[in-house]
Amino acid sequence: MHESIEFQMSLLLAVALAGHLLSSLVRQPAVVGQIIAGLLVGPSLFGWITYTHFVANIAHLGAIVLLFVVGLEFRARELAAVRPFIIAVAGVLVPWVAGYLLARGFGFESSRALLIGVALSATSIAITADTLRELGRLQTPAARLIIGAAVIDDVLALLALSLAEQLGSGNIVPLAIMLMLVKAAAFIGLGTIIGTMILSRIAHHVDQSRFAERSPEFVFVLGMLTAFVYAMVAEYLGLSAIVGAFVAGIVFEGIKVTHSRSVHIGAEYVRAAFGAVFFVSLGVLADLRVLHTDTLWFAAALTLVALLSKFVGCGLTARLTGSGVRDSLIIGVGMAPRGEVAMVIALLALNRGIIAQPAYVALVLMSLATTLVVPVLLRNWLFKNQETTG
Amino acid sequence: MHESIEFQMSLLLAVALAGHLLSSLVRQPAVVGQIIAGLLVGPSLFGWITYTHFVANIAHLGAIVLLFVVGLEFRARELAAVRPFIIAVAGVLVPWVAGYLLARGFGFESSRALLIGVALSATSIAITADTLRELGRLQTPAARLIIGAAVIDDVLALLALSLAEQLGSGNIVPLAIMLMLVKAAAFIGLGTIIGTMILSRIAHHVDQSRFAERSPEFVFVLGMLTAFVYAMVAEYLGLSAIVGAFVAGIVFEGIKVTHSRSVHIGAEYVRAAFGAVFFVSLGVLADLRVLHTDTLWFAAALTLVALLSKFVGCGLTARLTGSGVRDSLIIGVGMAPRGEVAMVIALLALNRGIIAQPAYVALVLMSLATTLVVPVLLRNWLFKNQETTG
Repeated sequence: MHESIEFQMSLLLAVALAGHLLSSLVRQPAVVGQIIAGLLVGPSLFGWITYTHFVANIAHLGAIVLLFVVGLEFRARELAAVRPFIIAVAGVLVPWVAGYLLARGFGFESSRALLIGVALSATSIAITADTLRELGRLQTPAARLIIGAAVIDDVLALLALSLAEQLGSGNIVPLAIMLMLVKAAAFIGLGTIIGTMILSRIAHHVDQSRFAERSPEFVFVLGMLTAFVYAMVAEYLGLSAIVGAFVAGIVFEGIKVTHSRSVHIGAEYVRAAFGAVFFVSLGVLADLRVLHTDTLWFAAALTLVALLSKFVGCGLTARLTGSGVRDSLIIGVGMAPRGEVAMVIALLALNRGIIAQPAYVALVLMSLATTLVVPVLLRNWLFKNQETTG
Repeated sequence: MHESIEFQMSLLLAVALAGHLLSSLVRQPAVVGQIIAGLLVGPSLFGWITYTHFVANIAHLGAIVLLFVVGLEFRARELAAVRPFIIAVAGVLVPWVAGYLLARGFGFESSRALLIGVALSATSIAITADTLRELGRLQTPAARLIIGAAVIDDVLALLALSLAEQLGSGNIVPLAIMLMLVKAAAFIGLGTIIGTMILSRIAHHVDQSRFAERSPEFVFVLGMLTAFVYAMVAEYLGLSAIVGAFVAGIVFEGIKVTHSRSVHIGAEYVRAAFGAVFFVSLGVLADLRVLHTDTLWFAAALTLVALLSKFVGCGLTARLTGSGVRDSLIIGVGMAPRGEVAMVIALLALNRGIIAQPAYVALVLMSLATTLVVPVLLRNWLFKNQETTG
């Protein structure tokens, strides 16, 4: 019974709707309510649902659709800018060094401290982007900078991960690091250009044929297919799958159809169901029962360092490269959530025996705390009364 | 690589689109192309994809969404009719007896022959309904009779399954059979009435509140949730999950919203992606490599008996209870596909050691053949030139 996928889907969707309603009652973004609701029904408290393969798969589908939808609102040339790149570099280096120093201070040996630092370096684009989407601020200059920087940041964090593993094992291969950087740039650049060329032709051809009248959903399914193919290629190249889905979204942003169903509207519907499940799963994934006092202190210190290092690294860089004070604050806060990327890195380190359970739980808590605090800060501080201050 | 869910989703969606395009080129329904494409990429030929847990789960989600969408075009009172019930009873009894006699003729012992007969008794509503939907004939009287009868037929076939198991083990409990029949009727009746009362109020309340402006997709996610909850309850009661999803669709058919996104349109989008994957998976599930000459003969005889027994059982009953000749032909043909229900019963019998691999493959082939032939018959014979004959 508890294993049937109807039960799991029902519970995940019910929890997502309940979390959505509750956060709406206290005027907070839906994601906050969904993650907390996931914590409540997960192993931490009620134990109604665990992070099964099925939940992991559905959450993974949700994350891909989520980033596809974010990409659908993003123009290709906004990625090829210099400022997001500078902000991303600072936003990876400052938390990495700060996290390393903190972990060393808590007695971790060098190779472990390096990996804990890496877990602090990757911004989770999904949470900030979804909060900004919900606030209707996805088109502001600060939001564009955050999303551009977060995408580059994700790539850089994965580079940092492989670098940390090589530093930990004692042999550094600069060539391999260079190669990965080139692959990432090539994937994003060529994926956007070639994808747009080929797919816009196919979509246009189908849309103008009589086929579109009988099968108006064809171009939408083509869009979903592209999201998964790009996610697969990105993962194959050693990047994160969600980076691929994001690039696929950019490709379809430029494709307009007249006789077919809209890819944007369809992806929005799929996101509404599966994206919600993704955020609930983040709460389910974190098992708070293994908490002890010393782990809590470490988690609290990690969270503080995580927030401050991104705030300084990204916010200050934004200010120094030309953003106003308010936009710099928004960028410093908006880059802070770690979410699923940090959790995945922490899980990887745990599985490889690089860190133990307490450090893992501390990283999960840090990731959760930054994820929970950022939507609240954005909504109640930086985007409050924006009509009068902005 | 082959195990990553991006790869599996990409391949399933690509195969679904390719099958869709190919069947469009030869003017056949999409499902035919999708099942054949699934056969090609499955273990039968290329072996690019196997029926993994992930594929099974996604296909299961697809079947639920598929039946939810079918239910969305179906009024509650159409289920409470006498004629679909009579057609369904004849449509279960005639194939059951015919299948039993055939299997006995091929040397199967009594208890096995009873189960093979049951596998012939359940119509797969999904394939006919999807073909009629694609042909734009879902609102014709014959289509309503087919769908109503197929739903009751599904319930009766599951009753026949438990009856066959009890007959096979030698102890018959009439009370248990009566109880199951009552549960089924109660679920469909009460599920429709209570569900409509409660859910239309919630949906209306949300739709009229300010909440709907910020979260227009809430009612849609509520619809998806209802589909899974009803599927879960149906399975818990010993019915098929897809019967529950169908009843959930009937509930939402009557719910109209003004400020929220349409449940119908959203479910259509999700169906476009996941329903296609379901049909591909039917092809992937059938491994034709285990075929031998004697199995082929049994499969051919089974297919012929399956087609004729439904054609006679349902078509003749429809004619005797008042349908015209053409509508009776449509009903006789439209009730013939067995699809996933027969495959599930065959798999169950295989896993319990009641039948062996050759009989299993023969049942799968029968199921596939009836599934493939019905859309072709409907499109090229019964609904050809309907403008002049109908």
